[in-house]
Amino acid sequence: MYLSKLFVPITKDLPSEAKIKSHQLMLRTGMIKQSSAGIYSWLPLGFKVMKKIEKIVREEQNIIGAQEMLMPTIQSSEIWKESGRYEDYGEEMLRIKDRQGREMLYGPTNEEQITDIFRTSVKSYKSLPQILYHIQWKFRDEIRPRFGVMRCREFYMKDAYSFDLSDKDAKNSYNKIFYSYIKTFNRLGLKAIPMSADTGPIGGDLSHEFVILAETGESQIYADKKIFEIDLNKYDFSETSLQKMRDDFSSIYAVTDEKYKEKDFNDKVKKENQVKTKGIEVGHIFYFGDKYSKPLDCLIDTKDGKKVTVKMGSYGIGISRLVGATIEANFVNNVMKWPKSISPYDVVIIPSINKNNTENLEKAEKIYSELKKQNIDVLLDDVDENMSNKFKKHDLIGIPYQIIVGSKSEEDKFEFKELNSNSEILSLDKIKTKLKK
Amino acid sequence: MYLSKLFVPITKDLPSEAKIKSHQLMLRTGMIKQSSAGIYSWLPLGFKVMKKIEKIVREEQNIIGAQEMLMPTIQSSEIWKESGRYEDYGEEMLRIKDRQGREMLYGPTNEEQITDIFRTSVKSYKSLPQILYHIQWKFRDEIRPRFGVMRCREFYMKDAYSFDLSDKDAKNSYNKIFYSYIKTFNRLGLKAIPMSADTGPIGGDLSHEFVILAETGESQIYADKKIFEIDLNKYDFSETSLQKMRDDFSSIYAVTDEKYKEKDFNDKVKKENQVKTKGIEVGHIFYFGDKYSKPLDCLIDTKDGKKVTVKMGSYGIGISRLVGATIEANFVNNVMKWPKSISPYDVVIIPSINKNNTENLEKAEKIYSELKKQNIDVLLDDVDENMSNKFKKHDLIGIPYQIIVGSKSEEDKFEFKELNSNSEILSLDKIKTKLKK
Repeated sequence: MYLSKLFVPITKDLPSEAKIKSHQLMLRTGMIKQSSAGIYSWLPLGFKVMKKIEKIVREEQNIIGAQEMLMPTIQSSEIWKESGRYEDYGEEMLRIKDRQGREMLYGPTNEEQITDIFRTSVKSYKSLPQILYHIQWKFRDEIRPRFGVMRCREFYMKDAYSFDLSDKDAKNSYNKIFYSYIKTFNRLGLKAIPMSADTGPIGGDLSHEFVILAETGESQIYADKKIFEIDLNKYDFSETSLQKMRDDFSSIYAVTDEKYKEKDFNDKVKKENQVKTKGIEVGHIFYFGDKYSKPLDCLIDTKDGKKVTVKMGSYGIGISRLVGATIEANFVNNVMKWPKSISPYDVVIIPSINKNNTENLEKAEKIYSELKKQNIDVLLDDVDENMSNKFKKHDLIGIPYQIIVGSKSEEDKFEFKELNSNSEILSLDKIKTKLKK
Repeated sequence: MYLSKLFVPITKDLPSEAKIKSHQLMLRTGMIKQSSAGIYSWLPLGFKVMKKIEKIVREEQNIIGAQEMLMPTIQSSEIWKESGRYEDYGEEMLRIKDRQGREMLYGPTNEEQITDIFRTSVKSYKSLPQILYHIQWKFRDEIRPRFGVMRCREFYMKDAYSFDLSDKDAKNSYNKIFYSYIKTFNRLGLKAIPMSADTGPIGGDLSHEFVILAETGESQIYADKKIFEIDLNKYDFSETSLQKMRDDFSSIYAVTDEKYKEKDFNDKVKKENQVKTKGIEVGHIFYFGDKYSKPLDCLIDTKDGKKVTVKMGSYGIGISRLVGATIEANFVNNVMKWPKSISPYDVVIIPSINKNNTENLEKAEKIYSELKKQNIDVLLDDVDENMSNKFKKHDLIGIPYQIIVGSKSEEDKFEFKELNSNSEILSLDKIKTKLKK
């Protein structure tokens, strides 16, 4: 893609309500545009990043055998009345009357709806265990939406739901998701800590939130850095191995300020391993047994002819929120560097252009075609602007690799730079190899 | 995927309101489940087909240089008041008040919103032409939703918007989309006829609808079958070639019953070329100049320092609707056969299973692993059910190729069948070759 053709309205004027750096960066680089309070359009640059995150989340859900489906955004109030949450949910639920006067709502979450689908579809123990998920827009009518996509009203979320015959099986499903979440965040280039959590309005007695480290995060985190050294490859998908994995994570100290006690921290964590920082919640998982299946009467026939209420859990990853959270974690000293796996482009070519000399631009175009042939997704900055402005701009856009075509480039060697590192003079072949790693 | 694990609630009981065959088939094969009037969940089998259609639509949009983005589902009423459509739209628009009492709505289309984004982002002729698109859920509060996903309330649509400096440029954008639509429908295995159409509430003076042939369609079609013989490969992306393409399509007789005159039809179309059938609208494109850019004051600086209102068009493909439309076009004599490009699976293995003999199932599992290794997406029907029921079921699920492991299979040869054709006895290597074609 040529930057002059890309729909990326870069702006220098920031609205006063953009207080955190991800919000500022996303507006400045034209990743999003607000349409009303807490509601955003995703412009091509932001959209690409979000889609890459979505793809990784999807792949990791599929690996553990979860099946993708899609529930609608607009739900009937009926099932919420059955579960008893219609009144409880309060004003955060966007309530709607359709033209026939029926009470509808924009789904803030889908426990009721998936239970309704399941109860009419599955009757026999033979169809269990089952994990279903969807990636769909949700709406929560926050009283004070803020922080850009981090706390908006219309947001994009992956939510999965597990169905099992017994508590024991259900905890195995929970552990599978736990495993896939750690793996997902690793692939997104994020350091995520699973933390035992309260269940809140979703209910249940077992819950973890996944928190990534970011100095600007909303909650204070105290942890033992050994938690990052756990190697997921040690575990297989057997029930005992997955339980061992969760136990291993749980055995290492990691709490938010709510549960923090200075003495505990110092007793349990060696000084040099103590991590004190802030964190952002990017995932939350719940096991709640029959909290929804009981009022909604979701019964399964067991092997010995009895009927039991199915045991359920729910598991969310905030996909639109992750775009902002990744920026909070990676935008340091005025330089944003996207993790390679979710960068909007693999590499940007930055030629030094002036009106009287098109040589650099022509060279850049040749490199561009070469890289395209190798299926490398490349952006060419063909805008007529001085190099210092270009570099500032690309410090924000955050593509991790740059090929600079200017004074330092030789016949067939070019300046290659990884953001936050020194540049090297390399042949195009060497550059290709580096990019393909 | 093993069928016993797939979440596909096959049902024999049909609700009385399922009157057309796509609605019936989608419910029977568990592709969708209704959650309220005109609102559906997409279960894994239906979801897979819809996603494959979406992917093809996206690829063809990208090929003509359209850029993907994403606008939210919930819009503010403000921009609709600016364009003057807020009152006009009537009860089909789902109107919502948020907790602050602000008038919002669930977008039925996005002309206003994209114009608002464009006017604040693009000021100069240098950024034109531009085509932006998104694939997003829409809502139209139909008074009488019916025909399953063909006429539902919450529906999935690709809508693109073009921005040009002049009428002439804008018509070139229109022609690019025209070209990409024909190509898209070809890839979906559908025969689509572009027909000159009325513009209706979108406005403008140039419009085509794309209609696919299906005996159960909503409108009567009269056409010259030569229209299917136009070879898109004859044209390139130059302005003159694209205009020639549209002229070539327009020169061949094709009308709906509104414009049909028997005498014209007989005069202009040879008897043996006359096609009289029904059709389903699956795409609609509009050129409307400054209908939205004028009231919304979307101005562009021209090269010679003037300001002009940008010239716009909009271009829709109903993605969820296409799932139903494809069934209407391909479900004939009680056999559904998905076009290869959008079939939920590439092939299904159907072993003859009985409790005392697991030999066929074991053979089937071996074939399954072999095909998986070749990246062939395969379904294995491991359900314990007699073969006649299995065949009936797969006539509905509609995977175009079957490998039958039963009485006719030899040591290393198996019965291979393409739906609606006779079966052959082939080695696994030959089968692989056939599937990969």
